[in-house]
Amino acid sequence: MSITRSKVREMQQRAAAALDAAGIRLTDAERANIEVAELGLGHVEVEGCQLVTYENNDRYCAKELILLPRQTCPEHRHPPVGDDPGKRETFRCRTGVVYLYVEGATTSPLQAHLPEGSESYYTAFHEIELRPGDQYTIPSNTLPWFQAGDDGAIDSEFSSPSRDEADVFTDPRIERMPQVIDG
Amino acid sequence: MSITRSKVREMQQRAAAALDAAGIRLTDAERANIEVAELGLGHVEVEGCQLVTYENNDRYCAKELILLPRQTCPEHRHPPVGDDPGKRETFRCRTGVVYLYVEGATTSPLQAHLPEGSESYYTAFHEIELRPGDQYTIPSNTLPWFQAGDDGAIDSEFSSPSRDEADVFTDPRIERMPQVIDG
Repeated sequence: MSITRSKVREMQQRAAAALDAAGIRLTDAERANIEVAELGLGHVEVEGCQLVTYENNDRYCAKELILLPRQTCPEHRHPPVGDDPGKRETFRCRTGVVYLYVEGATTSPLQAHLPEGSESYYTAFHEIELRPGDQYTIPSNTLPWFQAGDDGAIDSEFSSPSRDEADVFTDPRIERMPQVIDG
Repeated sequence: MSITRSKVREMQQRAAAALDAAGIRLTDAERANIEVAELGLGHVEVEGCQLVTYENNDRYCAKELILLPRQTCPEHRHPPVGDDPGKRETFRCRTGVVYLYVEGATTSPLQAHLPEGSESYYTAFHEIELRPGDQYTIPSNTLPWFQAGDDGAIDSEFSSPSRDEADVFTDPRIERMPQVIDG
């Protein structure tokens, strides 16, 4: 699968508008390079997310994750890589509401809506509701997924080093780095 | 030296007001526990700073630093501790302007005002001006100090683990953890 350059630009503009509304300032270079994680499923507004990576070095990483209304970051884990036990990460909600799911006792009913056609690739159903100022730390090599509420959300992520290319998604159809094509 | 409980409360309230104005949300517990680093010099509004630590674990750390107008965080370094080569840290300016000084070619004239009576304890004069969206990474075991501009500033700090008690300040009069007394 692939995503068109014009769709990437549209998603970047929507993410930039959400950051502006939250008073989170970017440099022009950061704004032009907002990452659109399309994931190769062909419905980025349903499953996907937008990211700004402030810093990612061999000791720590910091990002903003921008989610559109009801957009879902699909279930995944950060496995060990060499001497690294896998990425540990703290999500801190800045705006909106985020329904975060981790391994543990199943919450019922779920406040998130499972993405249609992808239901079987979601297995962790312990729900944590994050509102502005709330945060949660996810241990390395465990499964999170999360969905924004009806107004979208911005989450800060503080973590150990990020190696996105090593992420393991439950859905085998997902490509972390799909091709961008003209159009 | 020591600081009174009422002065701590006053500084906490000023820091909370600055965070509110920037749209940065805290939980009630975080708000009640804003750290006032008085440093034992008896003039916290001149040399000192306010901190909210979101997360500090054995892999990474994330804080907000809140500086009042022209308040200075004095010169210090984060030395190696055991296997840790010393804290590496990225400052990202969120609001206001920060004049950051690191080791390197001296900038002249300086935009910061050296704190009166403490001039001899400042030695690093390579100036970096940080405005909202700008950031700078400080290598471990090197000397930074910084001062907010006329309107104060908020900086996010992303870093390797923080061990404040190990910080080495150039000014030997500084106590990182002064006593809080009634009053």
